[in-house]
Amino acid sequence: MDTKVDIIESIYDPEVFRQAGHRLVDQLTDYVLAARQGSMPVLPEPNPLALPESYQQPLPLEPAADVTVALHQRLQELIEQGIHLQHPGYIGHQVGAPVPAASLAELVAGVFNQSMAVYEMSPSATHIERQTARWLCKLVGWNKDADGVFTSGGSLGNLTALLVARNHASGGVAWEKGVRGGPPLAILASEQAHYSVARSASILGLGQENVLRVPVDRNFRMDTATMAECYHAAVAQGKKVAAVVASAGTTATGSFDPLREIGRFCRAQGVWFHVDGAHGASVLLSPQYRSLADGIELADSVIWDAHKLLFMPNVVTALLFRQGSHGFEAFSQEASYLFGRHPFPEYDLGLRTVECTRPMQAWKLWLCFQLYGARGLGELVTQKLDLARAFAAKIKAQADFELLTDPMCNILCFRHLPGGAGASTLSLQQLNEHQAKIRKRVLASGKFFLVQTLIGQRLYLRCALMNAQTTEQDLANLLELIRKCGAD
Amino acid sequence: MDTKVDIIESIYDPEVFRQAGHRLVDQLTDYVLAARQGSMPVLPEPNPLALPESYQQPLPLEPAADVTVALHQRLQELIEQGIHLQHPGYIGHQVGAPVPAASLAELVAGVFNQSMAVYEMSPSATHIERQTARWLCKLVGWNKDADGVFTSGGSLGNLTALLVARNHASGGVAWEKGVRGGPPLAILASEQAHYSVARSASILGLGQENVLRVPVDRNFRMDTATMAECYHAAVAQGKKVAAVVASAGTTATGSFDPLREIGRFCRAQGVWFHVDGAHGASVLLSPQYRSLADGIELADSVIWDAHKLLFMPNVVTALLFRQGSHGFEAFSQEASYLFGRHPFPEYDLGLRTVECTRPMQAWKLWLCFQLYGARGLGELVTQKLDLARAFAAKIKAQADFELLTDPMCNILCFRHLPGGAGASTLSLQQLNEHQAKIRKRVLASGKFFLVQTLIGQRLYLRCALMNAQTTEQDLANLLELIRKCGAD
Repeated sequence: MDTKVDIIESIYDPEVFRQAGHRLVDQLTDYVLAARQGSMPVLPEPNPLALPESYQQPLPLEPAADVTVALHQRLQELIEQGIHLQHPGYIGHQVGAPVPAASLAELVAGVFNQSMAVYEMSPSATHIERQTARWLCKLVGWNKDADGVFTSGGSLGNLTALLVARNHASGGVAWEKGVRGGPPLAILASEQAHYSVARSASILGLGQENVLRVPVDRNFRMDTATMAECYHAAVAQGKKVAAVVASAGTTATGSFDPLREIGRFCRAQGVWFHVDGAHGASVLLSPQYRSLADGIELADSVIWDAHKLLFMPNVVTALLFRQGSHGFEAFSQEASYLFGRHPFPEYDLGLRTVECTRPMQAWKLWLCFQLYGARGLGELVTQKLDLARAFAAKIKAQADFELLTDPMCNILCFRHLPGGAGASTLSLQQLNEHQAKIRKRVLASGKFFLVQTLIGQRLYLRCALMNAQTTEQDLANLLELIRKCGAD
Repeated sequence: MDTKVDIIESIYDPEVFRQAGHRLVDQLTDYVLAARQGSMPVLPEPNPLALPESYQQPLPLEPAADVTVALHQRLQELIEQGIHLQHPGYIGHQVGAPVPAASLAELVAGVFNQSMAVYEMSPSATHIERQTARWLCKLVGWNKDADGVFTSGGSLGNLTALLVARNHASGGVAWEKGVRGGPPLAILASEQAHYSVARSASILGLGQENVLRVPVDRNFRMDTATMAECYHAAVAQGKKVAAVVASAGTTATGSFDPLREIGRFCRAQGVWFHVDGAHGASVLLSPQYRSLADGIELADSVIWDAHKLLFMPNVVTALLFRQGSHGFEAFSQEASYLFGRHPFPEYDLGLRTVECTRPMQAWKLWLCFQLYGARGLGELVTQKLDLARAFAAKIKAQADFELLTDPMCNILCFRHLPGGAGASTLSLQQLNEHQAKIRKRVLASGKFFLVQTLIGQRLYLRCALMNAQTTEQDLANLLELIRKCGAD
């Protein structure tokens, strides 16, 4: 008996896939039902030092005795030690419980494995990605000149857009010659822009000192008057601004920068306008809230994470260009074993992404649009923003809570003020410690997962309402729990 | 009746997931069985202009009448227009039919959606990723100082490793100041290095002109004597070499650069040694073939794609550092809403990757190691390399075929010489056209998918044996088919 062939045959046995697959679907469904009922702590153990024995073992050398049983067990461990985004008390970071059909789409992608670099390796998935990009471009408000691709997350999306802007600003010289010559290139963004914007500047060789930070107003939106001053000051210093980056919305507070004003300024100055719509571009699908992104059509480039407010599994990021041809300015080289064998470069998506091999990302979103329509996915957005407004009203109605700012989308920052706003005698430091203590205790209760963020010198509790299961009653319960956790 | 709530409830209905999931598992299993029997053309239509009607429609506004039926139909379309990596005649690019258990792991990831940036969002998946990284570091031959993370594909892996090398070479100045000051930084790689290496240099602001290309020997391995000359010439010109990049193996021919020699040279010069093991690092799991990567332990950084020779679904790339602490030198900034809330930065993986939100990539590989052991996955590697040697012998035994070079791993380049090597009167141009014509016809037959690549001025047929279903008999049939396709 050839045991080598036996191992390979057993690994690829389609009937093992069928049997294990059915068992897995049931196991996952049961898990989701349990998680939604809140029958497990939302985050079992927030301390990484509690390293389970099983995660310390050396590499197993031999196959498991029964693959289906082993798969079941490994999944149980993953569940027991995991965070439960499906739990109604999960209101933490901007990642949510995925739309179930999109989770199934991951299985399809995992079997098909079409690779999004060259057309011939992903014929149907390329058509699907291109169609999805056209849909999103149209939602932005662009015409047929627009085009886009998908990439692995918003940070990579911002990097790629700013790479195009950098190359553009250098007059096409940077690709060949690097960024040593010519005037220093700068990037202008608000103090509240996502960290990946400043990171991108350093990756691209421009350096942190050429990231010009514009202050924000009291609603955490970029102050456009100061932006203009900042821009002209940079030019006067001999710098060339490669791009102005607006946030729609910001990570900490979900604020939307005034896109129309910024866009008009950029047009007038002839400077690249990039909109980081990772979190907020999805409001374009909500009739009630799409005006938050008013002016987004003035952008030269937009990124849009469908794994945030459209609830796709990680990750589905669209990188969109008003002039689709700009998308080809990120990179310019050839690989004879890959590209250029047909006269349709727009179908070889790897010419426009950092990634070569890339999973079928747009397929998940495309499928959900087919199943639920723009209206269905739009309702998911509207529901969360509605809920945020209801929660904000609730917080404002309590004397011992302070809301940082009215939420523009589904992110809220607030603090507990023991004894009420006027009565509190705690110092800044003590108040910060109070919030941190509350968060720790809330997490330990297993009932809610929320986060904290430093705004200026003040620590706030922060939540992103990313869960279709979370109700207004849950949020009322959260305030009660916080009060209890802050009681001594 | 509140139709908004109805839509959201139907989108998240766990029983719809269960029902559609079971149907999907059966549909996918049946598909795989059919594809493996070769009962469909491996690539139905290689022409992107044949745009199916369904991919031209505008964004659907309303939900589908029956979600389970719609899902089934959409998947059928995807199949009909897709490429079939499970087909025994699929021997094309370096992406293969995934291990079925890893495809199931994608479904798990699609439901759990743990995000690999901060520990609290991915407690079990972070332990799993760190454990997998340790296993791979040990296979490289490193001690406990080594560490790594996973990232979205080899191109991004190379970029991140070279970013560390760039920051390192600049004495830590590049992050803050950019790359304008100090000596120009250069990267040294062979002519056969993957295009992402040169791309990375331009992304990082160094420019194509600072990518120093070292010639290869007749087996397409970096010529180390010339490498040393090239290095010293660059230094003499005032450049500082930030990194030497070795390929293990190259994309076009699967050649392994002489890692030990290059590594020794780098140690002696104190220059960063990066090994692009995207394709070939997996030989470390094959007792028969691991010596191909002899010397890899001298590297400062290694990338390793498990979606290539370990047959994971796209993508699973490990980015490994001999000194794990170097992994933190890629980026250096804080985001208060994300990082730094516990004293264990090594558990916040987003501090070391371009991505912030990132899917559970290592989980797939980890699960397969648990199910099949190092031996099981190692056999997958060995099988393909054995098959390549058998195929090479077959090609060499035919008078009318020319093998470019003996395969080091599972990639072969060869040409058909009508009439035999001596007898052919065709010009270079005519011979190239002959190969291109053959490839077109082979693809049109639906029986095989292989690719072509330009080596110097000569066009070769190229195949990567990425399929556990492909037999020696299939490859004998391929040669017969090529002969027929080249017959007029």
